[in-house]
Order: sequence, then structure tokens, then C-alpha cells
Amino acid sequence: MEPKVMIILGSASDFKIAEKATAILEKLEIYYDLRVASAHRTHEKVKKIVTSAAKNGVQVFIGIAGLSAHLPGIIAGITHKPVIGVPVDVKVAGLDALFASVQMPLGAPVATVGVDRGENAAILAAQIIGIHDAGVREKLASFRRDFYSKIAEDEEKLFLQMN
Amino acid sequence: MEPKVMIILGSASDFKIAEKATAILEKLEIYYDLRVASAHRTHEKVKKIVTSAAKNGVQVFIGIAGLSAHLPGIIAGITHKPVIGVPVDVKVAGLDALFASVQMPLGAPVATVGVDRGENAAILAAQIIGIHDAGVREKLASFRRDFYSKIAEDEEKLFLQMN
Amino acid sequence: MEPKVMIILGSASDFKIAEKATAILEKLEIYYDLRVASAHRTHEKVKKIVTSAAKNGVQVFIGIAGLSAHLPGIIAGITHKPVIGVPVDVKVAGLDALFASVQMPLGAPVATVGVDRGENAAILAAQIIGIHDAGVREKLASFRRDFYSKIAEDEEKLFLQMN
Amino acid sequence: MEPKVMIILGSASDFKIAEKATAILEKLEIYYDLRVASAHRTHEKVKKIVTSAAKNGVQVFIGIAGLSAHLPGIIAGITHKPVIGVPVDVKVAGLDALFASVQMPLGAPVATVGVDRGENAAILAAQIIGIHDAGVREKLASFRRDFYSKIAEDEEKLFLQMN
Amino acid sequence: MEPKVMIILGSASDFKIAEKATAILEKLEIYYDLRVASAHRTHEKVKKIVTSAAKNGVQVFIGIAGLSAHLPGIIAGITHKPVIGVPVDVKVAGLDALFASVQMPLGAPVATVGVDRGENAAILAAQIIGIHDAGVREKLASFRRDFYSKIAEDEEKLFLQMN
Amino acid sequence: MEPKVMIILGSASDFKIAEKATAILEKLEIYYDLRVASAHRTHEKVKKIVTSAAKNGVQVFIGIAGLSAHLPGIIAGITHKPVIGVPVDVKVAGLDALFASVQMPLGAPVATVGVDRGENAAILAAQIIGIHDAGVREKLASFRRDFYSKIAEDEEKLFLQMN
Amino acid sequence: MEPKVMIILGSASDFKIAEKATAILEKLEIYYDLRVASAHRTHEKVKKIVTSAAKNGVQVFIGIAGLSAHLPGIIAGITHKPVIGVPVDVKVAGLDALFASVQMPLGAPVATVGVDRGENAAILAAQIIGIHDAGVREKLASFRRDFYSKIAEDEEKLFLQMN
Amino acid sequence: MEPKVMIILGSASDFKIAEKATAILEKLEIYYDLRVASAHRTHEKVKKIVTSAAKNGVQVFIGIAGLSAHLPGIIAGITHKPVIGVPVDVKVAGLDALFASVQMPLGAPVATVGVDRGENAAILAAQIIGIHDAGVREKLASFRRDFYSKIAEDEEKLFLQMN
Repeated sequence: MEPKVMIILGSASDFKIAEKATAILEKLEIYYDLRVASAHRTHEKVKKIVTSAAKNGVQVFIGIAGLSAHLPGIIAGITHKPVIGVPVDVKVAGLDALFASVQMPLGAPVATVGVDRGENAAILAAQIIGIHDAGVREKLASFRRDFYSKIAEDEEKLFLQMN
Repeated sequence: MEPKVMIILGSASDFKIAEKATAILEKLEIYYDLRVASAHRTHEKVKKIVTSAAKNGVQVFIGIAGLSAHLPGIIAGITHKPVIGVPVDVKVAGLDALFASVQMPLGAPVATVGVDRGENAAILAAQIIGIHDAGVREKLASFRRDFYSKIAEDEEKLFLQMN
Repeated sequence: MEPKVMIILGSASDFKIAEKATAILEKLEIYYDLRVASAHRTHEKVKKIVTSAAKNGVQVFIGIAGLSAHLPGIIAGITHKPVIGVPVDVKVAGLDALFASVQMPLGAPVATVGVDRGENAAILAAQIIGIHDAGVREKLASFRRDFYSKIAEDEEKLFLQMN
Repeated sequence: MEPKVMIILGSASDFKIAEKATAILEKLEIYYDLRVASAHRTHEKVKKIVTSAAKNGVQVFIGIAGLSAHLPGIIAGITHKPVIGVPVDVKVAGLDALFASVQMPLGAPVATVGVDRGENAAILAAQIIGIHDAGVREKLASFRRDFYSKIAEDEEKLFLQMN
Repeated sequence: MEPKVMIILGSASDFKIAEKATAILEKLEIYYDLRVASAHRTHEKVKKIVTSAAKNGVQVFIGIAGLSAHLPGIIAGITHKPVIGVPVDVKVAGLDALFASVQMPLGAPVATVGVDRGENAAILAAQIIGIHDAGVREKLASFRRDFYSKIAEDEEKLFLQMN
Repeated sequence: MEPKVMIILGSASDFKIAEKATAILEKLEIYYDLRVASAHRTHEKVKKIVTSAAKNGVQVFIGIAGLSAHLPGIIAGITHKPVIGVPVDVKVAGLDALFASVQMPLGAPVATVGVDRGENAAILAAQIIGIHDAGVREKLASFRRDFYSKIAEDEEKLFLQMN
Repeated sequence: MEPKVMIILGSASDFKIAEKATAILEKLEIYYDLRVASAHRTHEKVKKIVTSAAKNGVQVFIGIAGLSAHLPGIIAGITHKPVIGVPVDVKVAGLDALFASVQMPLGAPVATVGVDRGENAAILAAQIIGIHDAGVREKLASFRRDFYSKIAEDEEKLFLQMN
Repeated sequence: MEPKVMIILGSASDFKIAEKATAILEKLEIYYDLRVASAHRTHEKVKKIVTSAAKNGVQVFIGIAGLSAHLPGIIAGITHKPVIGVPVDVKVAGLDALFASVQMPLGAPVATVGVDRGENAAILAAQIIGIHDAGVREKLASFRRDFYSKIAEDEEKLFLQMN
């Protein structure tokens, strides 16, 4: 099956953050593809990946990068599909990557999620896909219900621990 | 026609930022609705607006708020639809609202755009809607082409100004 | 006996900060209850806990949360009782949670204490309860006297260490 | 009648922020007193004001100060009554005063509200007093209800402005 | 004559900063070219400008941009020539553009100068060109000598003003 | 002999920073005294220490504190002698203590040195004492000369390491 | 008479901050000299001024500078006399100048006062000079007493304004 | 052979950052010299090193320093050759050194690279030298090509790891 989400990493060292996203996408049974391609060093490759993916059914892009995190912004300049940015904390508490992802000029937004928060990028992608995909919507709802249960269980454990 | 985008303002004083979004949505001929409802003060109302809107065909929510900008996060806790957050600069250069919007915990992402950047919220909404709506996609592409032309014109004017 | 203080954690992972508060409340013999309930994920539960607690004699709420720490602000929107916020350092040195807790809009203040400083939330709660409770006031005064003695002892130890 | 709230300003130049607080206290019919006394320059005076006020029925203190805003912390070191701090934006976006107010060491909490947000200090004081004062509690509830109505009216006006 | 310096602006609104650079380059009689081309919106154009310029004798590039200032980094990914970045203060005191320019990953440095400091970009370009161009070196030395004289004159004026 | 420098710590946990100062003072043979006294908790004690020290020949005070580091400012409000502040990094990279120490209002300056930099507080104290004490001045000059030699030696070692 | 304080400005544009210092020094009848000399551009001049001043009785130096405010640090590297630094707010809220002044490495402290706070530099200089000069000490004490009176008067005026 | 690049360290403790630069320079076969010389403590030595190096064929200077990182700015005040600054993270996430390096006043730019990013200083130096040195240019191009291959390999490894 064709991937619906294309994850691009600015560097292989960002893989630990990408895994947070792929773990969620797998639970939600959303097909994805994952590539490594630096915005500054291999722009042609980024463009080829994005253009080809957009043609082949990818609905949402996720760009994961640290430092001067240009990658999600570059993707946003190539495609009209929504682009999610995950800032990675490498230096200055990740503020450099957060600003680089979120402070995009008029015309090329990046839907930025929290520093190092790959999971939320996956959930946001699922929310977008879920608008027209009842299956994904249900899996997402179920994933969140499980989450609420887990919170309830955590509370139970804390009570037991305290009493 | 039913609105596709629901814009919620945390306070009437954020209207100047909302207008940046509505101007773009009108150009792209995307129906929207706009409400004012503070996350801290009228949570029931936010919930009613969001639940009802989600049932009636709204595909994307935009929450616009300054300070401890909880509004977009609150919306994200109510619906499985994607939620876009626009941090408004009221104090500390808007960093409070930016952090409050983007640093969401696991499970409830807010697709955050730049400080005061209502236009990009609208474009991001259009990108999401455009995945399954060729009309919006074309209008978005055309809007961006016009934008490129404007840049080219700006350059011409600068050249004339300099020579 | 009925609890006077209700502590709500945004996540079970904030428990280490909550323990700093409960240790002090126990020393001051102030009854408290402790719950886990995410502001974004289980708003109804937060509301039920807060409404029920406020009816049953709770005088002060303490909300402990990291990241986009909406929890104390949400509590402040539900009750007219005072709400204390403890920002937890998860990312960006805890500035996200500090801003989210302290920068509340007009009408719904959160009495914010320092980053990770659960003890001070407990002491502040005791000060509030102590206005009309001479027993608590005396225990608080005695707790602080002991604290001063400890400082004096620390100084003695430093002198011995240096001479 | 005896004042229930004592407001102390670090400098006469902070009066504009104090007026936000006094306007609310007057609406809620809470008696207050207001003094100017710098923490660094007239510590004895601060001590006399605070000690005397605490004896004469003041239940809550509000310290308003900018820069190295020590005033609320100093008050918190003198009394066992709750102390609210309002950081004033004079330099560096008010972060100096915010940190000075909120980052208190163990034992002497300052219940800090947002930068320049005198109104919330007054509301927090009313919430504290309202625990044991049904009249204040009702006036506070009514004040907040009016606030909600104003939000609803603002929304109406925006609708009319847009249609 | 062929330009030695190519200045690229991310947006026509950055022109006021570019003028600070061009005024210096003109004093130093260094030929330059100036273009407007957004990194996110017209990447092909940036590439064509940079590639063509690098072939036609341009020795140094200056990228001027605000917000998620990707432009200088994009240029640095295209050419092996040195690239100077000038962060422009649009939001958050220019820290977004400063970080985006300076925090480049391994392999594609941007020689970043101060926020809004177009003049220093021009002087740095002159220093680079001056390594192998005695004429530029002399003009630069003379420019700096004049600067020192101006400082001496400013001091004289201050003395007169004070005595 | 009477101490010339009085070091006051806000907390015994700041002792590691104080030791950096005392090590230098001992090398320079400047007598000092060291006390622990929290600004918020034991103001009377701080006042007694400072007043008595100022009478007994102490020429310079050093206040070492973290968080809302009021201690040096409190000392500066009590004495007309110069007060040096050493901000300690406990939270938010020490920016809270830095701001609290340096951003003093008109009339009560604190001579602030770098975060955690106890040594420089001692050297600054020695510079102040050295204005009228040739012995201290010579020891300080000699200490700095040794420092330069150490730098030269470090360079030698690096050369050897590299060649 | 010989000046006791030497004020050096990094740029004539910092004069407005210097005037805050000179106004106080004149009130305290402390002789001073004032020069403009950029650390980066005229190091030889800085050195000559500092060396000559130190020989001719100057006891304290004040360096006033914005941006990468190296000037006070440079002075501190030349003399063994105490050096006071006044960071000037030109960009990024003056944090660049504050850090550049205060974060000095081991061996060359700069006694840093608040951003734009020229007055406190003068008072600190007076405190240092006052250690061995009873006349200055008395004038400083009298200046501060007048300050306290002014605060008392400000309070009176506020009372009248309120009642 | 004569060195083309002169690296100066503010302190021997910055050597780990310098090694990142020297490793790249060695790969690119660019001769360099490395010295340790603090801007504040041994200005004469810095001046002698820089003046002599500039005369003997050094084309580019690299200043590596932390804290109030004046060193690159000092070098920039001595020579008309381009100066690269590498801010080192010692305190406050390296923001002090970043600001001190990049926020230079008019006339003395420092070409600043990322925090702790010694490699990029070396690559920038190579880009500058490569303008007139085809050998360096080729080695730089080849170094970057190898870098791209490594990225491609990293991607392959990730694919294998994932499938």
C-alpha cells in the first residue's frame, strides 16, 4: 500500500525522535515512509522525495530537525500539502529549532509541535488523515481512550502507593 | 453552506490577528465561522462550539490566543479534528503564548504557527482541506503563484529604486 | 476528616514534585487529596474533581504540571477558590510551564510558585488556610522556626568545616 | 472598617499597575490599604507596615515591583499571611521581576501572578478572603458572571462587524 | 564590471537593512548585485541566482532575512563560496532569525553578523575580498581610520557639551 | 586580625561557590568572615551581621545566592559599603539569580559578577581593598602574573600535544 | 583636582546613560573624567586612558557599552583597579551587553550594574571611594536619606490622590 | 609552509572545540597555527600574534571562546582580515558567548558560527581561502560530496534497521 505520511529527518541522529512518531503511526495502522535528507546539503533530494511523494498519495509530511531546522520549512516551500515540523533539542534547549520551524513567513506555514515531541506529530498527521478516513479516525479515538484509561490506572497506582 | 474552518478567539482583542486569517480564507473561498470564547472563563461554551462544529462539517479548528494561551490546547482536548494554534504577542514577545500552544503533552497536539501569524493559520487550514478538495487546492496554488509574482515585482521596484 | 487541599497532577510523572508538597502538608497536619487528571485529555474529570472538592470543604487547589501547563489555569476557570500552580521543568528549563501557569488572562489568576517547587505550594496553601485556622498557623510558624534553626546549624557546621 | 488587603508598591512609578488591583477590590467591596515602600531602601518601614497590618486584620498582602523585585519576597519573609506578587515590566520584558517574585526559596512562597497583571492579584486576594466570607464570594462570582456576559457581547459585536 | 558581492533579501521589507550594507559597499567601491528571493517560496530562483553569480565572479554572498531566516543557510547549501547572514528583527527581538542563521549544522556554515547589522555584513565581505585585493584593503583601512576620527570628534563634542 | 571581607551565603548549599572565593582571598592574604543567612528567612540576622561587620572594619560584602537571589540586594539596602553579588545557577541556567542581583533599582547597586563565579567576587573585593592597600595590590598583581604564566604554560602543553 | 572616577563610553550614543551617572557624581561632589573610546576600534587609546588615569589617582573605572559590550572587560584586563560595567539596551533587551559585561572569565571581574542604570554605577563608585573618604560617605548617606524622604513624599501624594 | 589560518583559543579548556576545527583543516590540507591567549588577560600577546600572523600570510583568524567571549571581537579590532568566532557553551547555554561574538558594533564584524561548532569555522575558513585557491576549493567540494554520501549511507542503514 502507498504511504500516507512521509517522514523526513534532517540527520540520522534525529532517529530517536522519529521512532516516537513511527511507533504511533504503526499503532494507528497508517502507512508511512521515512527518509534522511538534510535541507542544506541535499536540497535536490528533498525536492525529489517531496514531489514524488505528493504525487503518489502522501497526504502529510513530517520534517524532523534540530539547530537551524530549515527542513520542515523547505518541504513547505515545495508542496501544497500540510507539513508538520518537530524541533529537536540539540543546543540552546531546542529554541533554535523551535523558532526555525514555527516562525515561517507568510505563505509557507509549518504546523509545529513541541520540542522532541515526535508522537504528537504522528497524532496530528492522523487527525488530518482522519478527516476523510473513518478507519483512522476510529483508531485515533480508540488510542486516545486507551490513553485516558492509562491515566486512570496511573492514578490508581499513585493512590495505592500513598495509602 | 456549512463552514469548513472554525476560528475561535480567546478574547475580542485578538481580532486583529483573526482578520489576517479571514482575509486569506475569503480569498480561497473557504467558508468559516468565528467565535470568541475564553478557555479559562467559558469552557462549556468552547466545548459546545467545538462539538457542534465538528458534527456539522468543520474540518479544521483555529485557536487564536495570547498569554497563557490555553485555548488551542483545550480545543485539541475536545475534538479529534486537527487544531491550529496562533500565539498572540501580548507580553514577553509572545513567548508565553507560543510555548503554551506548541508544548502540548502527548496525545493532544496543536499545529502551531508563528507569533501573530494569522495568515499562515489560514493557509495551513487550506492545505489540510485541500488534500481532498481540488478546488481549494487550485485556489491555494494560484494564491501562492500570485505571491511569487508579487515578490518578482517587489524586486523590480527595488532595482528601479536603486538605478 | 475532609481534605482542605486538593492536589491535582497533570501526569503521574509529576509525582516527584507532588511529594515535596505532601511531605510539608503532612508535617503541618493539613488533610489533602491527590489526583491525576490531564487538563487536555480529561477535562470532565478535572471539572468533577474540582466541583465536588469545592463543595466538600476543600479550600485551596494545587495544580502541578509541565510543558503547556494548562492544568492550574483550567482549575482556576472552574472554581472561585484560590488555585496554586507549580510549573514542572520538563523542557526549556521549565519556562513553558512557568509562563503557562503565571501569565493567565484577567479573571482567572493562578498563584504561581517556583519551577519544581512543590514545597512552597504547600506552604502557601497553609498560609491561606492559616488565616482562619490558628492550629495551622502555629504549626506553620513552628515549621519556619525549625527552618531558621536548621540554617543556624548549617552555619555552625560550615564554621567547623572551615576552622 | 479595617482593610483586609494591604498593597505595597516598590515605587510610586508602579502605581498604574496598582490601580488595576484597586479598581477590582473596590468593585468587590474589599477594604484595602496602599503604601509605597522600597524593599531595598526602607526595609524597617516595610516590616512595620506588614507586622502592624497583619495584627490589625489584614489577611492578604500584595507586593507590586519591577526589576530585582524583592518586595513581595521580603513581605513573605516577615509574615505568615499569604503574599501575592505582581511583577512589573520595566526592563527585559519583565522577566527580571517575574523571576524575582516567583523563584522564591523553600519556606517563603510568593503567589505570583502575570507580568503587569494587577487585576488578577486583586481577584486572587478576593478568592482567598472569599473562602470564609460569603459576601466576597458572591461578589466575586457576580463579577465573573458579568465578565462572561461581556465576552458574549464582544462576540455579538464582532459578528455584527463581520456581517 | 562584474559584481563581487551578491546580496539576496528574503523579502522586500528587509530593504532598509540591505541599504546599510550597500551604502558601505559603495564607499568601498565594491560592485554588488541585489536581489529579492524568498528561500521558502522561490528556491529555484535562489539557486539560479547563486549558481550563476558564483560562476560570474561573485566571491561573497550576503543573505538578509527575518523570522525563520532560512535564506542564508539555503545559499550556503548551494555554493562553496562564503555566505554572510544578517538576521533581521521582525519578532522575538530577532532571536529567531539569529538562531536560524548561526546554528547551521556541520558542513554549511553561515558567517552570521549582528541583528539588523547590514553594515558589518558589507565590511566582512570587504575583509574577505580584501585578502587578495589591495585596493579594497586600502579603502577598508581608510574607512576604518575615518571611523576612528569620527569617534575622536564625538568625544570632542561631548567634552564641549559638558564644559 | 579584623576581616576586610564579609561573605554571606543565602544557603549552606551555596558553599561550593563560596569556596571559590575563599580560596582566592586566602591566596591574597585578605581576612574574611563567612556566614549563612537567608534574606527571606532571617532578615534581622543579616542586618545584625552587616551592621556589626561594617562597624568593625569590613570594607566589602559578598552576597552569594541562587533563585530569587535577594540576599546581595538586601545587604546593599543596609550598608553604604560596596556589595558584590554572585548569582548561583540552581534553576533556569541561573538567569533568575543573575537578574535578581544585577537589576537593582536606583540607590542600592549590587556589583554583580558572573553566574557561579565566586573567584571573581574575591578578585573584585581585592581590587577595591587594593585601592588603599599596597600589599593587597601587589599580591593581586602577582596573582594575575601567575595566571598569565599558567596560560602560557597551557599553550605550551597544547603545542606539545599537537606536535 | 584630580578625578577619582573615569567614565569611558563605548560610543557617543551611550551618552544618555552616562549622564545618569555624572548627575549623581556631581551631587556627591566626586570628580570624574569622561571619554569615548571603543574597545574594538581604539584599543590603544583605551589602554592609554586607563593606564594614565590609574597612575593619576583614578580609583574606579566605569565602562558603559551596548551590544557585544567588551569595553568594561577590556578595561578590567588593563588595570588592577575596580571596573564597573553598565550594559546599554540597544538590541535583544540589552541581554547581549549584560552577558558581555557580567560573564567575565576568571581573573578579570567587571562589577556589573543593571541594564541602562548609569545612576547605580555612580553610587557604587561612591561606595568604593567612600570606604576611605568620610566626606563622600556622608554625602552618599545624605543622598540616600533624601531618597527615602522622596519615597515618603511619593506615598503622601498617592494617598492624597486616592482620598 | 606558512599557515593560512590562525586559531586562537580564549582558554586551554576550549581545546575540545578547537579540535573539531583542526580535524577539518587537516582533511582539507590547510596549514594552520593554534595559540591560547585570553582577550582580557593578555591583550598584548593577542595583538602580537595577530599582527605578526597577518603579516606572514595568515588569511583568516578563528577566535574560540566562552562566557563574555571578547576574543574574536578583539582580533577583529586589530586586523583587517576576516575573523571567525566560535561561541563555546560554558554557561547559560552558550548564549553569552554567542551574543558577545555576533553582536559586534559597526566597523568590526565577527563572522560567527554556531555554539560549539568548531567544524563550521574550519569550513568557512576554507570557503574564504578557496575563493582564490582552486586546490582548497576542490578539497572542500570533495569533503562535502563525501558528507552527502555519508548521509545517503545513514539513510540506508536506517532503512535496514526499520525493515
